[in-house]
Amino acid sequence: MQAVAMATQPVIKVAALCGSLREGSYNRGLLHAAMEICKDSIKGMEIEYVDISPLPFMNEDLEVNGTYPPAVEAFRKKIEEADCFLFASPEYNYSVTGPLKNAIDWASRPPNVWGDKAAAIVSAGGNFGGGRSHYHLRQIGIYLDIHFINKPELFVYVFESPPKFDSDGVLTDEETKQRLRSVLLALQAFALRLKVKYE
Amino acid sequence: MQAVAMATQPVIKVAALCGSLREGSYNRGLLHAAMEICKDSIKGMEIEYVDISPLPFMNEDLEVNGTYPPAVEAFRKKIEEADCFLFASPEYNYSVTGPLKNAIDWASRPPNVWGDKAAAIVSAGGNFGGGRSHYHLRQIGIYLDIHFINKPELFVYVFESPPKFDSDGVLTDEETKQRLRSVLLALQAFALRLKVKYE
Amino acid sequence: MQAVAMATQPVIKVAALCGSLREGSYNRGLLHAAMEICKDSIKGMEIEYVDISPLPFMNEDLEVNGTYPPAVEAFRKKIEEADCFLFASPEYNYSVTGPLKNAIDWASRPPNVWGDKAAAIVSAGGNFGGGRSHYHLRQIGIYLDIHFINKPELFVYVFESPPKFDSDGVLTDEETKQRLRSVLLALQAFALRLKVKYE
Amino acid sequence: MQAVAMATQPVIKVAALCGSLREGSYNRGLLHAAMEICKDSIKGMEIEYVDISPLPFMNEDLEVNGTYPPAVEAFRKKIEEADCFLFASPEYNYSVTGPLKNAIDWASRPPNVWGDKAAAIVSAGGNFGGGRSHYHLRQIGIYLDIHFINKPELFVYVFESPPKFDSDGVLTDEETKQRLRSVLLALQAFALRLKVKYE
Repeated sequence: MQAVAMATQPVIKVAALCGSLREGSYNRGLLHAAMEICKDSIKGMEIEYVDISPLPFMNEDLEVNGTYPPAVEAFRKKIEEADCFLFASPEYNYSVTGPLKNAIDWASRPPNVWGDKAAAIVSAGGNFGGGRSHYHLRQIGIYLDIHFINKPELFVYVFESPPKFDSDGVLTDEETKQRLRSVLLALQAFALRLKVKYE
Repeated sequence: MQAVAMATQPVIKVAALCGSLREGSYNRGLLHAAMEICKDSIKGMEIEYVDISPLPFMNEDLEVNGTYPPAVEAFRKKIEEADCFLFASPEYNYSVTGPLKNAIDWASRPPNVWGDKAAAIVSAGGNFGGGRSHYHLRQIGIYLDIHFINKPELFVYVFESPPKFDSDGVLTDEETKQRLRSVLLALQAFALRLKVKYE
Repeated sequence: MQAVAMATQPVIKVAALCGSLREGSYNRGLLHAAMEICKDSIKGMEIEYVDISPLPFMNEDLEVNGTYPPAVEAFRKKIEEADCFLFASPEYNYSVTGPLKNAIDWASRPPNVWGDKAAAIVSAGGNFGGGRSHYHLRQIGIYLDIHFINKPELFVYVFESPPKFDSDGVLTDEETKQRLRSVLLALQAFALRLKVKYE
Repeated sequence: MQAVAMATQPVIKVAALCGSLREGSYNRGLLHAAMEICKDSIKGMEIEYVDISPLPFMNEDLEVNGTYPPAVEAFRKKIEEADCFLFASPEYNYSVTGPLKNAIDWASRPPNVWGDKAAAIVSAGGNFGGGRSHYHLRQIGIYLDIHFINKPELFVYVFESPPKFDSDGVLTDEETKQRLRSVLLALQAFALRLKVKYE
């Protein structure tokens, strides 16, 4: 039994999901910023935004002969191909949003395509900055077999000054960008650690 | 300051919501059984099934000039008119379902129509009988200002013998019916206590 | 069946518990402030501080012939005599403290002396102001059959300006005092509603 | 940047902690069984039982000049030396026990000695077999930076037949032993994956 030595660090593919369907969502703004930061200054990591809005409501009756509706199949393929996940998870009523939970549940149907991969959560909001949604999402991830990074956590307080986003929902605050970058680096590092398996 | 004396016990109107959209859902079977039990043997309580399937996905952009899409307005009206709530909350991936969370969030939009009312949760499923969904739902209820009864909790273990449901999803197990009846009586009693206010 | 009319509003007795054993605890400071506010400006409510530090570690082996160690018996008596509870619950590692959980567990031993009473939670801390401990405490309360008020929640952010406490741990911030007073009034109102029972 | 190749699989040292102080605790029985299973049939893994009963109640005032009471220092050393953790976490009132939380908090004091290590949770009990305590413990672990395995989870239902333990609290049920063994193997595999770091 031995660690597999890798001559070069593999490129980590990240699927980025946003729990809000709202056009001007700050949470989607975080994902766009993450994609820009990644492209500009993180080697070996690629983030793809995966849209959850085309999915129907989860209903097992829509599974026919072991196949899912086309939008679901397309979504599941994106999740399956990713090495890890970045969730922008707004807090609606002290938990995750319905559309996000719905998307998660579709990709958990057999075979579960989330399994044994790393993930990170970011959020923007009032009060705890979306924080309560993180802990529900983490509990959901246990059954999906997702390995969340523990640190750093990122809660963006949208109502505190200085302003974090401009009027188009674009992240403008430099300190928040740096903190977001730290999340991405931690996600990359954890995904790499999990990729190495003993044989 | 004095308790308002009520000459006669008011009739408690219950809105019943099911988190599963599946036709043969055991959880909807619990609600149908609750409605029958209520009609047959509980005085002063009426249960109305409220369908969540016509709702669109939650998206604040659909709120125009302070009004919501017709299906949302109709749903919100049902919630507003109810004195209390009975949730049949299946556990999907260790939490509530997407469609249920989605429905809850729509009715929380201003003005929140869940507020200061009693509720109970029942569920059917494998493993913990849907139990993990209860605790997420209870946390969601804090922000909505829902007062959940604490006892009894009802988790129906669908894979244990004797069978609890027939092949059409109808609750047939007598002991489970008695336990479901106890939940209804506790919900009624708690709703009545909460109705009395000091002046 | 009829609501019991009460000619005069009963005095609500509150047992106040602090999760921190630290001398200069901000959370205990919140309880002291609550007691002062109550005495000064709330009619019909009395708060007694109940010390959890004399309790031994929870161990069922210490229960002999249905009796508990003297410190436990004394603590249980205080809990039993109270109409409702005020918890000052600091967040240690994203949950309640060990000493608080320990005290709670002792008073839950048969017969459970927490049952069917109202409660409120306040906390002071960094980050979420102790917030994560609230939701764990609320879940603990389900089994104890405690009815927590939902609103207002009070999280005091000790590291934000203006300063909330002086160097002796005394609450000095006026706005926080007003918010604390609102918690007390909500607790009183809820305890009164729950006191009325149909016969 | 490259994976560190290890010529031979390192021996994984496990610190095993029990949340119950009760002499005949089923949860401690699980740990004793785990130690026996490990010795008999798992290569490359050693489990040491770490007693939490000598610890005082958590109180920052007991930290003097950056040192902790002797029992705390001894405990912290055991945690620091371990590669990963096995928690036997009984459910008391829908959460972890006070003594376990107390021990956890002591070892989180600066410098946190839990950080960046793998862990697994097992439990025995009625109802959900101790299950609710797992999810609180996992949330606690976020701040400690513990990486819990997601699968398999082990909840031992002590009141179901066939009996799982004998009258001395010794685990006797073969199927449960096999499931416990699977937990240990998953913990070992996860600890090994996490040990490999890129340089």
